[in-house]
Amino acid sequence: MTDVTERPMGGGRGEGPAEASIKVSALREGTVIDHLVGGSALKVLSVLGLNFEGAVTIGLNLDSRKAGRKDIIKIERRELTPAEVARIALISPRATFSIIRDFKVVRKFTPELPAVVDGLVRCPNPSCISNASWVVTKFLVVRPDPLRVRCHYCERSLKKDEIELL
Amino acid sequence: MTDVTERPMGGGRGEGPAEASIKVSALREGTVIDHLVGGSALKVLSVLGLNFEGAVTIGLNLDSRKAGRKDIIKIERRELTPAEVARIALISPRATFSIIRDFKVVRKFTPELPAVVDGLVRCPNPSCISNASWVVTKFLVVRPDPLRVRCHYCERSLKKDEIELL
Repeated sequence: MTDVTERPMGGGRGEGPAEASIKVSALREGTVIDHLVGGSALKVLSVLGLNFEGAVTIGLNLDSRKAGRKDIIKIERRELTPAEVARIALISPRATFSIIRDFKVVRKFTPELPAVVDGLVRCPNPSCISNASWVVTKFLVVRPDPLRVRCHYCERSLKKDEIELL
Repeated sequence: MTDVTERPMGGGRGEGPAEASIKVSALREGTVIDHLVGGSALKVLSVLGLNFEGAVTIGLNLDSRKAGRKDIIKIERRELTPAEVARIALISPRATFSIIRDFKVVRKFTPELPAVVDGLVRCPNPSCISNASWVVTKFLVVRPDPLRVRCHYCERSLKKDEIELL
């Protein structure tokens, strides 16, 4: 499989970026999730589902002054529900959320993990009662960063990497 | 789970975009994959694997003059192998590839699907010989757009949505 309609471009003109920086449209309305742990953006997208009404811009592996590498997601025409924010905080506890309206940041926050997380995390212990369909899982946040949670029912303790979201 | 460290932002200052357009760094070296069918970018990323050395920028659901909605992927410090380009062409036959060096587009091409695709597509027919571990699958491209391929061995015909990449 080879490229047949190849077309050499003189002087970098055309659709590709040809300058040290390019202009992209800013978000008129929507949400910016910044300072996501590097590599976590695609997991965050799967939490949000993939039915987006507007454009979504994702930056992976970006240089960050605070952390070594970070991801960022900009979602047009969508504000997140508290449950979505909570799920994302479990994936990336230091993420910051900015709500944009009419090109302005009208609200910016870092969600704080609550002491108890209900119905968000699956207990990996197969004999734990919380895996019965009628039980809502319940985890206590032992430590926010690095994240550690403990199942209220069987007391199984989970590190961040072991957490599987429902 | 609620946002506790909320911080209202006056006048849209801060890290969020506050103007009608924002500047982002252009690609110094790497590959831009443009005109991907809307919604196909994440599938393309999974084809490329997720171990990227540099930054990756992904635009989903962008307005396109040619198609209604398109996706775009910019990959820093990586040029694609012919096999990767072939896989992406099977996902999104009208994708265009631009190779960037020193901020300039040095090469731009639309891959053309070959008449025969070897070792890229899995035959969904469980009794097809090509599912034996020692056989390399082989599909004939019956029609490029909308894509239709036919298994060389069992003659099972597949539409684009039915194609599963190896």
